[in-house]
Amino acid sequence: MKDFLRLRIGILGGGQLGKMLCQAGSRWGLDLHILDRSPDFPAGQVNPQFTPGDFRNVEDVLRFGRDKDVLTIEIEDVAVEALEQLQSAGVKVYPDPAVLQTIRDKGLQKIFYRDNGFPTAPFRLFAGKEEIREAVQEKRLHLPFVQKTRTAGYDGRGVAVINKEEDLAKLLDAPSVIEDLIPMLREISVVAARDVHGDVLTFPAVEMAFNPHANLVEELLCPASLSQEEEADARDLALRVCNAYGTVGLLAVEMFQLADGTFMVNEVAPRPHNSGHHTIECCDTSQYEQHLRAICGLPLGDTALRRPGVMLNILGAEGHSGPVRYEGWDQCLSVPGVFIHLYGKSETRPFRKMGHVTVTASTLSEAREKADFVRQTLKAVT
Amino acid sequence: MKDFLRLRIGILGGGQLGKMLCQAGSRWGLDLHILDRSPDFPAGQVNPQFTPGDFRNVEDVLRFGRDKDVLTIEIEDVAVEALEQLQSAGVKVYPDPAVLQTIRDKGLQKIFYRDNGFPTAPFRLFAGKEEIREAVQEKRLHLPFVQKTRTAGYDGRGVAVINKEEDLAKLLDAPSVIEDLIPMLREISVVAARDVHGDVLTFPAVEMAFNPHANLVEELLCPASLSQEEEADARDLALRVCNAYGTVGLLAVEMFQLADGTFMVNEVAPRPHNSGHHTIECCDTSQYEQHLRAICGLPLGDTALRRPGVMLNILGAEGHSGPVRYEGWDQCLSVPGVFIHLYGKSETRPFRKMGHVTVTASTLSEAREKADFVRQTLKAVT
Repeated sequence: MKDFLRLRIGILGGGQLGKMLCQAGSRWGLDLHILDRSPDFPAGQVNPQFTPGDFRNVEDVLRFGRDKDVLTIEIEDVAVEALEQLQSAGVKVYPDPAVLQTIRDKGLQKIFYRDNGFPTAPFRLFAGKEEIREAVQEKRLHLPFVQKTRTAGYDGRGVAVINKEEDLAKLLDAPSVIEDLIPMLREISVVAARDVHGDVLTFPAVEMAFNPHANLVEELLCPASLSQEEEADARDLALRVCNAYGTVGLLAVEMFQLADGTFMVNEVAPRPHNSGHHTIECCDTSQYEQHLRAICGLPLGDTALRRPGVMLNILGAEGHSGPVRYEGWDQCLSVPGVFIHLYGKSETRPFRKMGHVTVTASTLSEAREKADFVRQTLKAVT
Repeated sequence: MKDFLRLRIGILGGGQLGKMLCQAGSRWGLDLHILDRSPDFPAGQVNPQFTPGDFRNVEDVLRFGRDKDVLTIEIEDVAVEALEQLQSAGVKVYPDPAVLQTIRDKGLQKIFYRDNGFPTAPFRLFAGKEEIREAVQEKRLHLPFVQKTRTAGYDGRGVAVINKEEDLAKLLDAPSVIEDLIPMLREISVVAARDVHGDVLTFPAVEMAFNPHANLVEELLCPASLSQEEEADARDLALRVCNAYGTVGLLAVEMFQLADGTFMVNEVAPRPHNSGHHTIECCDTSQYEQHLRAICGLPLGDTALRRPGVMLNILGAEGHSGPVRYEGWDQCLSVPGVFIHLYGKSETRPFRKMGHVTVTASTLSEAREKADFVRQTLKAVT
């Protein structure tokens, strides 16, 4: 590969993940370029090399990608056909478009785990909500279950939990995966990274705590409350999934831990992930730097956890829509070990991801106490 | 003051210090604007809000500053008269132009220390080299001594050490401070920060090791090899100097430690400083964030040293001028605890500051060993 500083690197997507990739790359002065609709988006604020365009549009992606050496993504929902063409033309595309094709369709993803012998919740595929209703009526499908639309679902969107008859009104009308509702102990994520030589390193497992109301991760804990053996099992599973995909760059592997202590793969994301934000402050190599190392052909960096961390999202407060301001900022900034990241979005909406906070301390329980203070204090309001 | 996210903040200077200020500010999405000659300069690579212009030119600074709420600097050598006018017009200027006026003139700086009772090397002021020669000939001035030009000296420029007769040929012809050559144990720097309410916090003392050939700091060690009491003395001296100036924002206080363990003030810089680079990785609050907190009216952040650090500059290799490439990159990136910062300068020259590396480890001596490896391995060449 060319000298890494001379690589022209394109990122599809200019949201907060793109922003944090640019921030990581700017320490080395990498030649990063962003494609997204407006330079006012988060990544445009830290990278003047911004091409306005739609990463879902084949022409826009082709035009953007043609003069790049390497292309990557911060979101799965992109014009994969354009990436395939660019790859054929010699551009390195990480993740590989074929991998992306599988991952962005939750149906294909589930089939991949089944075919490769990875533990995953039992599932069936349906074309739309009528088919699902029919199967329920004919008792071919039993409540409770989880519906996930096959594409375009993220941040809790495209998911419906059907516990009882009345919930059937919530069914989404799209090609879907119907999964058994698995009784689980906890939800775990392991961010792995695979380099161009096939070496894989994993970050320590993180434990996710959900806000059931918004169906968004509310708090993320690292280390997770796993035994040493369970931690090793979770990381090994992530490593094997990463190798099975053969992807280059990050792969965040979300999994469920069952009552017997074993893990099932839920789903993966071949890009920086919410469950890796804390690596900026808690590890020597952040997930963002790790992704850039991988796609530039550089050696992977150290993933050891230097100190415990709690990550919480800053979500737009309920009942507030419009130009944002933040309450409680000064109080939170006065607490040692509180790292606030705002994504530079000028408008807030209820539950919109406006930023995140990583809280560190010498123990996880101390970090959780400080995180509680931050959650009660810092508000994105109008 | 306005909500800090709505403050329009201008920075005079778009070099590496400006770049690192922008990187720190981008985590919160601060509205930072840069004034410097070209957006190709380091800060322009991380901040699209770049106004081309000359920060030494009164008109350019006035034009740039008029619509800002707060102005700050990354270099002292700016059009102070413009800053004074802008301050009168209601723009907050940190550091205060009056403080900047004193600090940028090493003669006025020395007088300030003398008048305020701070220990500093004995000195006299001269108009130029002929006056100095005359004083030497007439035995009113005795060798050895140090000549420092009163203005525009930085990174070892504008300094001549006159040990013997022949060295007189090296005298610089400019208004100068002539200082006694002080026999010292070591050179120390303490970065202090003062907020708008007058509260001051200091970072732990750092010890500077010079490359005598280039007259540039070669390696910086934190913690410094001081006793607890000496460390407290050094930080107290920095705090008192910071309070005496009454500046807002950072003040890096360079000092000499004498054989008896006491400290003398050498000179100060009212901005981010080479001796604070390691705070990015070794403290929870970097010097850059601290400066932004101070000038935005936010509370100062925690300055505790989380782990030992060695900082070394990446200087252009001797005998190489032209488009830069870096040797030894992969080997250095494979060492845990090695953080490389490149400033994004496309051309190298002998001894040009191309970047810096912070090396951390659980002990300082381990960090120094790794730093030695980096120094021998990482080269900025053509």
